[in-house]
Amino acid sequence: MEINRAEISNWLKGLQDSICSALEKADGKSKFEEENWIREEGGGGRTRIIREGNVIEKGGVLFSAVEGDAPDFLFKEKEHSSSTQSSATKSEVKPKFFATGVSIVIHPKTPMVPIIHMNIRYFEMDGGIRWLGGGIDLTPHYVFEEDAKFFHKALKKVCDKHHADYYSKFKKWADDYFYIVHRKETRGVGGIFFDRLNEGEGSDGERMNFDKNLNFWKEVGETFAPVYTELIERNKNKTFNENNKQWQLLRRGRYVEFNLVYDKGTKFGLETNGRVESILMSLPKLAGWEYDFKTEKNSEEEKTLGLLKKGIDWV
Amino acid sequence: MEINRAEISNWLKGLQDSICSALEKADGKSKFEEENWIREEGGGGRTRIIREGNVIEKGGVLFSAVEGDAPDFLFKEKEHSSSTQSSATKSEVKPKFFATGVSIVIHPKTPMVPIIHMNIRYFEMDGGIRWLGGGIDLTPHYVFEEDAKFFHKALKKVCDKHHADYYSKFKKWADDYFYIVHRKETRGVGGIFFDRLNEGEGSDGERMNFDKNLNFWKEVGETFAPVYTELIERNKNKTFNENNKQWQLLRRGRYVEFNLVYDKGTKFGLETNGRVESILMSLPKLAGWEYDFKTEKNSEEEKTLGLLKKGIDWV
Repeated sequence: MEINRAEISNWLKGLQDSICSALEKADGKSKFEEENWIREEGGGGRTRIIREGNVIEKGGVLFSAVEGDAPDFLFKEKEHSSSTQSSATKSEVKPKFFATGVSIVIHPKTPMVPIIHMNIRYFEMDGGIRWLGGGIDLTPHYVFEEDAKFFHKALKKVCDKHHADYYSKFKKWADDYFYIVHRKETRGVGGIFFDRLNEGEGSDGERMNFDKNLNFWKEVGETFAPVYTELIERNKNKTFNENNKQWQLLRRGRYVEFNLVYDKGTKFGLETNGRVESILMSLPKLAGWEYDFKTEKNSEEEKTLGLLKKGIDWV
Repeated sequence: MEINRAEISNWLKGLQDSICSALEKADGKSKFEEENWIREEGGGGRTRIIREGNVIEKGGVLFSAVEGDAPDFLFKEKEHSSSTQSSATKSEVKPKFFATGVSIVIHPKTPMVPIIHMNIRYFEMDGGIRWLGGGIDLTPHYVFEEDAKFFHKALKKVCDKHHADYYSKFKKWADDYFYIVHRKETRGVGGIFFDRLNEGEGSDGERMNFDKNLNFWKEVGETFAPVYTELIERNKNKTFNENNKQWQLLRRGRYVEFNLVYDKGTKFGLETNGRVESILMSLPKLAGWEYDFKTEKNSEEEKTLGLLKKGIDWV
């Protein structure tokens, strides 16, 4: 199937619209502000930010579609010494790439509503290369098991519709990806994560067709709004105290650590001279670090830490 | 000259003691808490943390002396493909290393007192390899030019005593090192930074002797307390408002970005399974991020941003 770039970009813009509407409705107070930006080397984006809402303290729903010469690392082995002359490659013709996607991070005001992240992206490059990537993952400040189950069941439902292996494969991928190595903690309760879907189409025995995967990918995007607004409804009126707020700041600190130390999208963006304000919209309004913080025995905080592990079966 | 490991470690411990005393005196309220830790693979450290003082909100003065098998990246070219089998190297005998140092980061409560960082380190490895590294740099939330001048003049004085080129060389090194590439900003007003001093001893025409550099290195360490306590005295009673506090949070956010994205010591520590709480003591109690924050025209904040540039001559 031929992918029409305008078609896929427009579909993503429509998704951005519908997600923003659903979030504004769930928040009940704040509206998204929009900023359109142009990338010098080709393409641009539509950044939408929501702030100081009833429920959402800071969040972004970002659309972008960029194109141009592919950055070296996309099609070359990395130089293995920083002193190697790279000028020799400058005259070569670089392949062209095109990438479009929607990225979301929402930081709620109350520690009782989880942080959420979603990203779906489509990529193509000269030479017939194209793939799909994406994922949704949930980072509760306090892990409520019924919410984690609800979340994972919703994702499994989307996956199962398209391939019997997708949920187990992509759930494990999220566990491995959203892992804060130095803390020996997962970022949250995970979700699904996939990358370069369809890249080896036909060559690895899977023989999935692109159309089918594109539908899966679209449905992942469409799952975001109903799932997250349900989690908002369930938790937005729960009471909390000063200790819960302090804990939220520390959990946000971990979120910052993951995003700045490990997240590939962030690294990619910062290294390729991406739009910094869009890339770092994922960081919370406030985050905290306390030296050698210890949770109290049998506390909710301790229980949450016990659930920030890989390999938990939530369905 | 033969370096005696115990001698250099003990000197560093003494430095830690005297710096902690000076900071406690300048703070006038809080005392350092001490934690001794042991590194499984060899050596350990003495972490001292101060919190919730009159002036210091969160700070650490850390001593460590570690030894053992040198991590691969210290003596090998990096593998240029992640898929390369590294198991082939496992049976090789690794060289032994020894590293000791003192590291300091102080985050003051008031936005009028600058954040400061100092580190001095001594490293040796089998095969006669040894070097000295270190630096001090200042990160004011608001750049007061008279303070930046005072700070740089003090560093220049120490440098000039030992080598006519040191200040200009190490000042530039700090400008280049403490640079937040994606923000196109320096972290603060810089200071001095040097690494692998004496590594090429005798081979590059400099022919400095180790003794002489060791004295320089010690004096850098001894410069910290008088310089920073003076900056505290100058600024601790200055008044500030809610906007100044907000700006402090954003500047601390930048500090977090630098430390997690660029700082080599942090990366080294996290990648080599270092003691996370000691490594990340450098992060502030609270930090903030605001989407696309713009300073007001002709404001103090705008003036500060204008001074976060490389190459400013402060002396």
